[in-house]
Amino acid sequence: MADRAIQDLYEGPASHCYGCGTRNEQGLHIRSYWDGVRAVACFHPRPYHTGIPGYAYGGLIASVVDCHGTATAAAAAHQAAGGTFDTGPLPRFVTAALQVDYLQPVPVDRPMEIRGEVQERTPRKVVVGVSVLSGGELCARGRVVAVRMPERWVSPSPGRAR
Amino acid sequence: MADRAIQDLYEGPASHCYGCGTRNEQGLHIRSYWDGVRAVACFHPRPYHTGIPGYAYGGLIASVVDCHGTATAAAAAHQAAGGTFDTGPLPRFVTAALQVDYLQPVPVDRPMEIRGEVQERTPRKVVVGVSVLSGGELCARGRVVAVRMPERWVSPSPGRAR
Repeated sequence: MADRAIQDLYEGPASHCYGCGTRNEQGLHIRSYWDGVRAVACFHPRPYHTGIPGYAYGGLIASVVDCHGTATAAAAAHQAAGGTFDTGPLPRFVTAALQVDYLQPVPVDRPMEIRGEVQERTPRKVVVGVSVLSGGELCARGRVVAVRMPERWVSPSPGRAR
Repeated sequence: MADRAIQDLYEGPASHCYGCGTRNEQGLHIRSYWDGVRAVACFHPRPYHTGIPGYAYGGLIASVVDCHGTATAAAAAHQAAGGTFDTGPLPRFVTAALQVDYLQPVPVDRPMEIRGEVQERTPRKVVVGVSVLSGGELCARGRVVAVRMPERWVSPSPGRAR
């Protein structure tokens, strides 16, 4: 397992994401770790991240799936290009499509475990399957179609994405 | 157009959602209005809701699609049962499945407009199509499969959802 989180190796505009950017002070700071085959994360919801009392809201789970999915894509692409996980930057992927199936409620008072595995990969696109577990039980299943962030997005006006 | 937001008519455990609950002080307070055929909402991201600088993160868009989708389902079911929008409570729906296609970046410094329309409806399940626009342009397209919140979820331990 790499010592540094995938998100620690994002640079520039990729590090300001509310979900996972190290430079977003108000953000969720989702941190995903690559083990050579898959990415894993542990995320502690805040007490107010409720949908119904005691359980996480669906948008939080979607956010976790989204950021962990693009992180998995970045790590897999970096590894495929021969990169190491000691230094960055990692290639940055953005989400073209997101799917989440909510299987059972996720308690808000304990960490959720998130796993991401590559299902398909081309140089431009990575499809990632994401599982969200709580207390060892599968609570949500996600799928992220991640595409390389267009170079022009580094400019102040990204324009049409895809 | 109804004067009261759909979420103003949620009661009990349905009013604590981080995305749209009136009783969640830290929440996003998404407010959706029913016009008799569709639900519309206007949501102002906060400056730190960025994905890349200047543009909203994907999880926020997923959250908005999710909460607006279940609100659309609640309003449509309430209307079908002969209810009015002066008083609640509305039946509460939860998300079984969520899909979002991200078509282009959503600027974080201006309101997004969200529209929800029923695609299929049975007494237990409503499928809602959601569009997210910014500056009049379609930026994301969503689909929410919303199911009636199980009665047992009002208890402190919801258990398996579906």
